[in-house]
Amino acid sequence: MTTPAAEYDVIVIGGGPAGENAADYAIANSTRTAAIIEQELVGGECSYWACMPSKALLRPGHVLAAAKNMPGVTAHGLDVEAVLRRRDGFVHDHDDSSQVEWARDNRIEVIRGRGRLAGERLVEVGGRTLRARHAVVLATGTRAAIPDVPGLRAARPWISRDATNLHEVPARVVIVGGGVVACEAATWLRSLGAEVTMLVRGPALLAASEPFARDRVAEGLTAAGVPILFGCEPAAVHRPEVADTGEGRVHGGPVTIEVRGAKPGTLEADEIVVAAGRAPATEELGLDSVGLPPGYVEVDDQLTVRGVEGDWLYAVGDVNHRVALTHMGKYQARVCGDVIAARAEDRPLDGPRFAASADHAKVPQVIFTDPEVASVGLTAAAARKAGYPVDTVELDIAVAGSALARDDYAGRAALVIDTASDILLGATFVGPDVGEQLHAATVAVVAGLSLETLWHAVPAYPTVSEFWLRLLEARRG
Amino acid sequence: MTTPAAEYDVIVIGGGPAGENAADYAIANSTRTAAIIEQELVGGECSYWACMPSKALLRPGHVLAAAKNMPGVTAHGLDVEAVLRRRDGFVHDHDDSSQVEWARDNRIEVIRGRGRLAGERLVEVGGRTLRARHAVVLATGTRAAIPDVPGLRAARPWISRDATNLHEVPARVVIVGGGVVACEAATWLRSLGAEVTMLVRGPALLAASEPFARDRVAEGLTAAGVPILFGCEPAAVHRPEVADTGEGRVHGGPVTIEVRGAKPGTLEADEIVVAAGRAPATEELGLDSVGLPPGYVEVDDQLTVRGVEGDWLYAVGDVNHRVALTHMGKYQARVCGDVIAARAEDRPLDGPRFAASADHAKVPQVIFTDPEVASVGLTAAAARKAGYPVDTVELDIAVAGSALARDDYAGRAALVIDTASDILLGATFVGPDVGEQLHAATVAVVAGLSLETLWHAVPAYPTVSEFWLRLLEARRG
Repeated sequence: MTTPAAEYDVIVIGGGPAGENAADYAIANSTRTAAIIEQELVGGECSYWACMPSKALLRPGHVLAAAKNMPGVTAHGLDVEAVLRRRDGFVHDHDDSSQVEWARDNRIEVIRGRGRLAGERLVEVGGRTLRARHAVVLATGTRAAIPDVPGLRAARPWISRDATNLHEVPARVVIVGGGVVACEAATWLRSLGAEVTMLVRGPALLAASEPFARDRVAEGLTAAGVPILFGCEPAAVHRPEVADTGEGRVHGGPVTIEVRGAKPGTLEADEIVVAAGRAPATEELGLDSVGLPPGYVEVDDQLTVRGVEGDWLYAVGDVNHRVALTHMGKYQARVCGDVIAARAEDRPLDGPRFAASADHAKVPQVIFTDPEVASVGLTAAAARKAGYPVDTVELDIAVAGSALARDDYAGRAALVIDTASDILLGATFVGPDVGEQLHAATVAVVAGLSLETLWHAVPAYPTVSEFWLRLLEARRG
Repeated sequence: MTTPAAEYDVIVIGGGPAGENAADYAIANSTRTAAIIEQELVGGECSYWACMPSKALLRPGHVLAAAKNMPGVTAHGLDVEAVLRRRDGFVHDHDDSSQVEWARDNRIEVIRGRGRLAGERLVEVGGRTLRARHAVVLATGTRAAIPDVPGLRAARPWISRDATNLHEVPARVVIVGGGVVACEAATWLRSLGAEVTMLVRGPALLAASEPFARDRVAEGLTAAGVPILFGCEPAAVHRPEVADTGEGRVHGGPVTIEVRGAKPGTLEADEIVVAAGRAPATEELGLDSVGLPPGYVEVDDQLTVRGVEGDWLYAVGDVNHRVALTHMGKYQARVCGDVIAARAEDRPLDGPRFAASADHAKVPQVIFTDPEVASVGLTAAAARKAGYPVDTVELDIAVAGSALARDDYAGRAALVIDTASDILLGATFVGPDVGEQLHAATVAVVAGLSLETLWHAVPAYPTVSEFWLRLLEARRG
């Protein structure tokens, strides 16, 4: 690493995917300079501790299930060691040199350290103060929130990072939470052999999803042997033996969890995983130095921070609390970079490229459980709440292509339609590999297409995607 | 089966998927009556001899390849007997009773026999003459064309039907042809253990596809051990021993094929498969009785036959020669049925629903080779020929999602763009399971979306579909 300059055109605090993209787009095809300040690994939570390792742990289980349900193919598994090694490959053994090289290739300087705002266009890092000529971008993301349960912190619970970076599979795991992280972690821990129990405070998993999707994921987990205790939460946690064993690893004895709620009692486990929400990573970011309150950083559709004069401060990714998904953070970052570039060059912000329009009500998301859940746009409930006159069509995915795909194919699909305009507002698909079915719905929702238009978009036979035809036919009645 | 009535509102000749859909849509939500005349099996070529059995034979090989390339999963195969049994299940052991039941449930009468036109609104079948009050729909499809090669017919070559319905895997197979049927048959025959050689008259496989797709399929077949003799065709075929063994099966000794062209010589095989194009199944259809010439039946966008007065004669599916794909035949049939219903009820043909608009330049197709090829709309060459100012963007599919999907993932994707309007004209994807990626492109092409709009359709991370983002970024430059 070279000694950082005192001035850059663009300074990004946080080197995850959103920060990387913002820096890249802000200086592309120009002579502007940029620095990314990162205190951990360039590539961020997603690359090393979240999306990549979790999907690397999940994918072999999916492939095995597909192979086991195909007559003529003999499949065994999982070889846990091989799965963990493949996971290690995807997180590059926590070496970010390829990402640093990417930054260098794109003329972005990487500065190691904790960055914090120190006033207008000023950023402190490692005892030095840097000045940004055009823009400072906040991209620090979030961190796991640990609920205030007696004994929980002292028990050194696993957070999502520990679950994705496990080196041995614990025999017994209790997961606290019922959201995406909790459901995915339950899926891979179970597929790798752990006995898993979920403590879910509410009455359902995946509160933001369509009810049928919640039910199918709960059924899938239950069928895999994961008890889900709905309406339950930890009242207290006890773990007498906890010892650091170096390199951030912890050796702990069994954990006892007192459960309160619908099914009170006591659970014992070898690890407790807390997946009970996220908190903004802004505590030491110096927000007060520019007059901002603590917490998430609010932005407009140009990703410009509200309440700060001069159009120099931006926030992209999870830290702005618009939507906590890597691909949407990157989307915001592309828009943000374009906005910074245009403003730096005194170009008007003309055209749709300069506004993040898709991260409110047109957000795609895939939950890599078994079955997978893929959704975009509004659920029926959200559409009604937003005031739309809503019609829905919902049916099992049962077409030639799904039958051919695997003998145990089970899926379900739903569309949410604005009856006034005939326009598709949202879609949810559940089933094996439906994550790859989602983009068709995303294109339709983002473009605001009517079902009359979609009638002429013919799915190829015999693919799984022919369920689109069934949905349109069912809607027609 | 009941004795057919003398009159129906709608008479459909040919009970394949297109015929079934035309009848269904023409009488839905009405008291109209319909009959389908079928000389073989209701469900047609696609259900028993083409799409379904071929994909049933191909799918296990795909699943095995995916499993073999996933560390942690141990997979063996293929068990040929199990694969053939699964195929038998998909063709219902050539029993069409479930399709006949579907027809009955939808108030469509099934008449067994060979139907032929006998004048205006008249159809002969089994020695009786039926009258159609509103419409006659021709949906007889095509049959395999056998080239005029000395000794070929006498050698009782396999056509696609035989290859999909094989009971034993021949040790050595020569395939004549380089189109979709030939490439798919080569793929499954090889995966089931046959030694396969392809004789391809032209310089490439899959003449209508993008050049990179042709190359990748040729590379895949070659890597699987299939020699492809380009610029070659059979000059003569010899097979001394041929005997019928009943139930349509043939026992034949070895076949000798004299090859002419780029690599002249002699090949010996246990079966020769002819996949050298199709011919319209209209020879005995009585086209002359209504003043039509022999051959394919030309229709307008309402699927109404050109050159026949009175808007009573329609043709859907392969027989009209617009596009020979099951899903597009069904699409035409839906439009046709809607047109028949509207005309029968004296409603105007208002709106896009009453015109087949997607079966010219917006046709999706999946070729289930290894790698798969999925395409929609115009190739770059076709777009230029049609007079568009064309730009293309083409790159390898190499995103987090593809790396996660399988260790050997190799794919490529291309977009064809009208530079004047920024609108997507076509797309081609090559790689494992890209058939399920296609519908997003189909939606975009059919809706005529611009790349500026697609910029806001964000693929979910980390799915394979994120290659869309790479394409859009590459296009932006």
